[in-house]
Amino acid sequence: MFELLYWLDLFGVIVFALSGALMAGRYKLDPFGVVVLAAVTAIGGGTIRDVILGTTVFWVANPVYIFVILFTAILTIILIRRPKRIPKRFLLIADAFGLALFAVLGTQKALDLGVSTSVAVVMGIITGCAGGMIRDVLCNVIPMILRQEIYALAAMLGGCLFIIFNSLGLSENVSTVCAIIGALKLRLAAIYWQVSLPAFHISEKEK
Amino acid sequence: MFELLYWLDLFGVIVFALSGALMAGRYKLDPFGVVVLAAVTAIGGGTIRDVILGTTVFWVANPVYIFVILFTAILTIILIRRPKRIPKRFLLIADAFGLALFAVLGTQKALDLGVSTSVAVVMGIITGCAGGMIRDVLCNVIPMILRQEIYALAAMLGGCLFIIFNSLGLSENVSTVCAIIGALKLRLAAIYWQVSLPAFHISEKEK
Amino acid sequence: MFELLYWLDLFGVIVFALSGALMAGRYKLDPFGVVVLAAVTAIGGGTIRDVILGTTVFWVANPVYIFVILFTAILTIILIRRPKRIPKRFLLIADAFGLALFAVLGTQKALDLGVSTSVAVVMGIITGCAGGMIRDVLCNVIPMILRQEIYALAAMLGGCLFIIFNSLGLSENVSTVCAIIGALKLRLAAIYWQVSLPAFHISEKEK
Repeated sequence: MFELLYWLDLFGVIVFALSGALMAGRYKLDPFGVVVLAAVTAIGGGTIRDVILGTTVFWVANPVYIFVILFTAILTIILIRRPKRIPKRFLLIADAFGLALFAVLGTQKALDLGVSTSVAVVMGIITGCAGGMIRDVLCNVIPMILRQEIYALAAMLGGCLFIIFNSLGLSENVSTVCAIIGALKLRLAAIYWQVSLPAFHISEKEK
Repeated sequence: MFELLYWLDLFGVIVFALSGALMAGRYKLDPFGVVVLAAVTAIGGGTIRDVILGTTVFWVANPVYIFVILFTAILTIILIRRPKRIPKRFLLIADAFGLALFAVLGTQKALDLGVSTSVAVVMGIITGCAGGMIRDVLCNVIPMILRQEIYALAAMLGGCLFIIFNSLGLSENVSTVCAIIGALKLRLAAIYWQVSLPAFHISEKEK
Repeated sequence: MFELLYWLDLFGVIVFALSGALMAGRYKLDPFGVVVLAAVTAIGGGTIRDVILGTTVFWVANPVYIFVILFTAILTIILIRRPKRIPKRFLLIADAFGLALFAVLGTQKALDLGVSTSVAVVMGIITGCAGGMIRDVLCNVIPMILRQEIYALAAMLGGCLFIIFNSLGLSENVSTVCAIIGALKLRLAAIYWQVSLPAFHISEKEK
């Protein structure tokens, strides 16, 4: 059982590192800048979660994550140099996979450490969203999570689905996979149909 | 005594959540983006303080903060949709209340954990200013603290006043309230009369 | 031996505080904004390192850092007001010194706490680069580390050199100084000749 979660976690790191590297490609960064942006995106959320929960940070305990990120970033640079043109959606889709995986796995890790369910859902949102937020802030872009497509909502759905499935007596593996699929579907649907929740907008009276 | 501090703390969370939600309104975020920005503003500073001090993060220990933020953000969306126009100062004033409250309460919490007074004042500044800094960075705006009106100075004043009043033998409650009022007055005065300290400016010789 | 490291660390804090204060001068911040930006630049990286490693944050344990930053920022404001024009490179060079010093000292501190070498090198990169990253993000600029001149590479080189020299049986002091010089030379050379690694660039097909 531990095995499945571990591989899902590594897969999340890979897709987020890919999204960071693709973002870097838009800004003409040098190869080390690409690695840094990939790393920040891939481990930023989990690092903040672990620091807030006061537990050992996952990549300090297991340095394999560092090499996976390095490898992903280098491979992205090598493979993408040739066509040099990729559809814009590619970054969004990689980001969506990372979001769904990390939101559910983050919620689960928090629950394992014994926090209340509401805190666990928030930890899921942080794990899923914070890495991408830091990536966007470093590139001087308002983060996806704050712009209009359903983003934080998908992360929250993932965490809640996991808690619901788990409390219904499903095994942890099944709950995890189903919750990830649920969150992913919502986010991909939002990307595909460009669905947004109605925006909240205030005009300001200068006074 | 604990009670008063607890309510002041919750009040600080509410006004900062409000300031985050109002800022979100300027950028046409979706409702979940509003909640995220409100949360980051309200608990960002305290979270950084607790993480640096190595103590349990306050909202992990007591999830009521999460619900207070959720409630504040939703209420802001509902109530402000109608008039749709609010004076620009409203955000500044909510921010000033949060700043004064958190600067004093942050200093106090740090002192309770046994750090030296200079570190405690810095912790007060972090608690009061960091949430608003993150809010502004996420919205791609240079943070208030770095722009010209007296901001960090007000936070520092709050922390110092608390330490002075307390060492003069005033009760903790009285010291807290007086220090908050002092910091708030300075910041509100700076907003009202648009007072600034003289700016530090370097022209650059390109060479 | 401890002495040398301590003085090097303080020197790193001073040069980074200087770079933060100089950056502040470009943006016409008030004196307290200058102090805040100097502080964030000087202790941001080390703070993140200590928090991730779960050890006591260095400036909480030893508040002398706070006063050194305050003093550096105030001195910068006073001294630089007169000529009001300084070469642009000055900020880059101060930043390069801080980068080299902190990258090596950060790697060393992480190794002392018993993490694996790959994690220690990453900690060195974080210690050296994170403060400057936060400084740049707060000023709404894409961080140096992501732009084209060799930056993260110099930090990594510093950490790796230290590990190599140390494993070759050189004393800790000698290894530290040599590694710092190596990292500094690479970064200064990159600034001087404006050397960059070839940029990674993706054109996007909107589809």
